[in-house]
Amino acid sequence: MKILLVYAHPEPRSLNGALRDFAIAHLQAAGHEVQLSDLYAMGWKATLDAADAPHLAPGERFDAVVDSQRAYAQGTQPADIATEQAKLLRADVLILQFPLWWFSLPAILKGWVERVYACGFAYGVGEHSDNHWGDRYGEGTLAGKRAMLVVTCGGWESHYSDRGINGGLDDILFPIQHGILFYPGFSVLPPLPVYRTSRIDAAGFERLCQAYGARLDGLATDAPLPFRRQNGGDYEIPALTLRPELAPGRTGLGVHLREE
Amino acid sequence: MKILLVYAHPEPRSLNGALRDFAIAHLQAAGHEVQLSDLYAMGWKATLDAADAPHLAPGERFDAVVDSQRAYAQGTQPADIATEQAKLLRADVLILQFPLWWFSLPAILKGWVERVYACGFAYGVGEHSDNHWGDRYGEGTLAGKRAMLVVTCGGWESHYSDRGINGGLDDILFPIQHGILFYPGFSVLPPLPVYRTSRIDAAGFERLCQAYGARLDGLATDAPLPFRRQNGGDYEIPALTLRPELAPGRTGLGVHLREE
Repeated sequence: MKILLVYAHPEPRSLNGALRDFAIAHLQAAGHEVQLSDLYAMGWKATLDAADAPHLAPGERFDAVVDSQRAYAQGTQPADIATEQAKLLRADVLILQFPLWWFSLPAILKGWVERVYACGFAYGVGEHSDNHWGDRYGEGTLAGKRAMLVVTCGGWESHYSDRGINGGLDDILFPIQHGILFYPGFSVLPPLPVYRTSRIDAAGFERLCQAYGARLDGLATDAPLPFRRQNGGDYEIPALTLRPELAPGRTGLGVHLREE
Repeated sequence: MKILLVYAHPEPRSLNGALRDFAIAHLQAAGHEVQLSDLYAMGWKATLDAADAPHLAPGERFDAVVDSQRAYAQGTQPADIATEQAKLLRADVLILQFPLWWFSLPAILKGWVERVYACGFAYGVGEHSDNHWGDRYGEGTLAGKRAMLVVTCGGWESHYSDRGINGGLDDILFPIQHGILFYPGFSVLPPLPVYRTSRIDAAGFERLCQAYGARLDGLATDAPLPFRRQNGGDYEIPALTLRPELAPGRTGLGVHLREE
């Protein structure tokens, strides 16, 4: 398979750097092709702005949606954006590896999403009708591909448990796994979280690599999270609320997973 | 009062730009002092990296936690970071205004959090003991201040409802309202969401300003979201899980709100 690893950590001599190197070596040893986007090493431009719309005249009004769509359609996007889109189209599997900073993606990785996910590429795709609200949440440009998060956390596992103070990890990651990965079509594998990163010794790192290796070996076969497809009949259109007979009376982010 | 408005939108001639101008004028007319951090206009550096730790020798290993703590304690932080910290300390109320991009903060605003929230300032504060796990989630450097999100969304309100496909807005915003604002001590007021931004005409903008004005008039008096304080007895320490007798049997992010 072809694996795209998008990696966001500022220090290569870190746990994250070691995990990155482990993953690349493990995947290559299994015969896979690995492409690495090391955002800090690339000096990735984090901020989406008018410079990403070179078709605009100086001082012309910038619209993030309209202008990303136009630059994408015209082929006038900055080269760094077009290159990352081509990597996504080529890949069978996307891995996002990052430290959980303030319960979300590091800014540099969030900015990778904002700039690479052009309108017409990752959103604004497909027709809108009475039973179809665009190709998204299970359909879209990246449908048929798989994605997985590898997330390092300073805190304890219990702090991210169902009733842990930080919020359950599944809920904290919902805007990423559902909103960024499932939205443009990825099937999303369960994440690989790493907790208490400052306390991982050599033996702990060895155990972690065994667990990560098993997950890498299962990239093609592990069952994805059962997010409900938007246009599969589970949601009213255009309200896009879950039909009342599904997960009746329940609320919370878990309702968007099929009960299996 | 002293209001700090941190604003993240790339185009001043936009709905967000108009809302920013409305808020400043409304607050000033009411006698408040307004400080604006217009991140795009400031060319805010979004990416936290070794350049933010000028005490490091060239090529020395960078640790985001250790080095932000050291730079903060030594007073050797970059001037842009120290300036924003001083604005936060001076303010009575913080407003974060931004478009919801991919269900979270724009990268430039996420990077403001990552760089300004130094260890020793916004986290890593207070003692750890058997009944106290640092000054956070209701205690901390910014305790006694209030904060509010003003969030523009392209989608419909129903898409962000309790059973809407994007996830309920309260849940989507939990990592920001609870994880970024409540964590270092802010009391968090309910957000002001704006939906279907591309469809707002002159009359709609007028209604929006009336609603926003009412919220600005209530900054000092509106009831904050009743997030549970970490060290107030509701959580087991050090597991930091909600005590079983509170919201018994329930999970989901809503359990972290007191039942009133």
